[in-house]
Amino acid sequence: MKAPIVVTTGEPAGIGPELALMLAARHATDWVAIGDPELLRARALALGLDVEVVIVAPGEAHPGPRRQRLAVWPVALKEASEPGVLSTANADYVLETLDMAVAQCLAGKASAMVTAPLHKGVIRDAGHHHFTGHTEYLRDACGVEEVVMMLATDSALHGRVVSADATTDSLHSIPLRVALATTHLPLREVADALSQKGLERVLRILARDLTDFFGVVSPRIAVCGLNPHAGEDGHLGREEIEIITPVLERLREEGLALDGPLPADTLFTPRHLDGVDAVLAMYHDQGLPVLKYSGFGQAANITLGLPLARTSVDHGTALDLAGHGTASPDSLAVAIALAEDMGSRVAER
Amino acid sequence: MKAPIVVTTGEPAGIGPELALMLAARHATDWVAIGDPELLRARALALGLDVEVVIVAPGEAHPGPRRQRLAVWPVALKEASEPGVLSTANADYVLETLDMAVAQCLAGKASAMVTAPLHKGVIRDAGHHHFTGHTEYLRDACGVEEVVMMLATDSALHGRVVSADATTDSLHSIPLRVALATTHLPLREVADALSQKGLERVLRILARDLTDFFGVVSPRIAVCGLNPHAGEDGHLGREEIEIITPVLERLREEGLALDGPLPADTLFTPRHLDGVDAVLAMYHDQGLPVLKYSGFGQAANITLGLPLARTSVDHGTALDLAGHGTASPDSLAVAIALAEDMGSRVAER
Repeated sequence: MKAPIVVTTGEPAGIGPELALMLAARHATDWVAIGDPELLRARALALGLDVEVVIVAPGEAHPGPRRQRLAVWPVALKEASEPGVLSTANADYVLETLDMAVAQCLAGKASAMVTAPLHKGVIRDAGHHHFTGHTEYLRDACGVEEVVMMLATDSALHGRVVSADATTDSLHSIPLRVALATTHLPLREVADALSQKGLERVLRILARDLTDFFGVVSPRIAVCGLNPHAGEDGHLGREEIEIITPVLERLREEGLALDGPLPADTLFTPRHLDGVDAVLAMYHDQGLPVLKYSGFGQAANITLGLPLARTSVDHGTALDLAGHGTASPDSLAVAIALAEDMGSRVAER
Repeated sequence: MKAPIVVTTGEPAGIGPELALMLAARHATDWVAIGDPELLRARALALGLDVEVVIVAPGEAHPGPRRQRLAVWPVALKEASEPGVLSTANADYVLETLDMAVAQCLAGKASAMVTAPLHKGVIRDAGHHHFTGHTEYLRDACGVEEVVMMLATDSALHGRVVSADATTDSLHSIPLRVALATTHLPLREVADALSQKGLERVLRILARDLTDFFGVVSPRIAVCGLNPHAGEDGHLGREEIEIITPVLERLREEGLALDGPLPADTLFTPRHLDGVDAVLAMYHDQGLPVLKYSGFGQAANITLGLPLARTSVDHGTALDLAGHGTASPDSLAVAIALAEDMGSRVAER
């Protein structure tokens, strides 16, 4: 029996629970939600979603896909939750859903985990002062030193929204993957955060996980420069010369296929993207605007470097929308589709 | 008689001269090249391009569009030029072509100027030590204090390469325009280069020239934050709070329609781009990768803030390709199309 994908439903006052319900209402789903069954039933009722919430013992298999049925591995809320109303009392509930997902993935009872959004602030306010987000929490829970953030669009999604016109297709059928050398830093700290050691680790994780999770035998990675025009031979910054190029040369000697450092504004064109399995951007806003533009706003976040497959929606808790049923479950659907792809390869290992 | 657009053919050893010839070989053109007629004839001969080079006195009208005919306002080379071989002797020639274009635009004898690439290094080596590029040279030649760099794709281009599929069309039929608050700086200098005064000037120029050159009556501009997630309320940087938001609030009071500061990775999605006339990115690699991805690599550069309409190709001299006839004239075609659009409005003023 194939281990199911698990979806942590995240902050109970946010849109996570209803997004899971919306997908279950529309499609026959074979993934398992992790969260409070009573919360999910209450949200379904309030939103008029005709979804049966079926409790399954954690680690047990999915009862079988059927539309309007949501299977749940239960974790109990600490107190009842209203849409849009944060409570520190439920911070530990959110973390327990993550702990269950990690434990079951590592035990082979779940094939991949998908996370709906949590609210960092309320978790910090509840006493977890150093909490900085899913990614770091999962890194520590798995006992690894470094993880890599990658965003991807879904090629199946592209098949749906992009026409078969040949010229368009040549660019937009490419399921873009963009990984980041640095992540959530103020822009003024980015240049100093870049190091040969860090960049080398990121590239090794990226190359390995493209093989392990995405089945790319010899991944080819296009690497952006840090500065405009990739530094223009040192006229616009020296990080390409002093940090990026030496790392690329070292890793090429080991057989990695690496293009760059390339100017970010020419890299994201058909000529340079052709045959590339992932792009490594040096920082958040160098790579993600293109990725999200390319995905029509529908992309998912992937954490590489973990001993498990993890994807995530690329949006927040949207407290103002919670309980209205108007938020789009598209990013959650993309995250689940990518997790299916990754999880199938985890199962093969 | 309508004043023609002029195209400065740029560095004589680069691809500029042959790009102009390639366009003239394919289409009946009504713009006038500025450069050395003998150079153009020699290149046409060497490349087997059947183009008649017709000399017209500077300031005189175009003799009439005809395919395989290129009209030229002549400027003489200082010495003969071989493709791919730079010579400091011809640096002044390149600057003289610019001077002629500026003078004729200001005199109303040219409606707009389009620049093929020049080579900064050889101009500096020739003794113009402070030369930093077309844009600054034109700024000084026109006696203005500040100019704004904007890149644009061409809606006509989109019409050609993008299908009529409704979903695709909703995003890609938007002719993207992206202006930059800072331009060619090493990344580590960007945050300190941003100031309230500078940002306000850039926004004023952008709004005014969207009206003057692009006919947008009440331009709506979407403004990126500097930091990822637009600073996330100060958690990821304070420039949004201390610099960007105060400027936007001040200018909104004067009636400007300004969105933002918005996270760059959500701004470039259909929901936020709808109805927006231009995006202001805070720095080069925040805005241009999306723009060039959107334009399939085919975009043109526009200098705002000048008392004339100026567009430019978005590529360099490509010395290695010069003389082979293999470089693509697409960006020059886009630059000329945009100049036509801008120039027609200049004529109406």
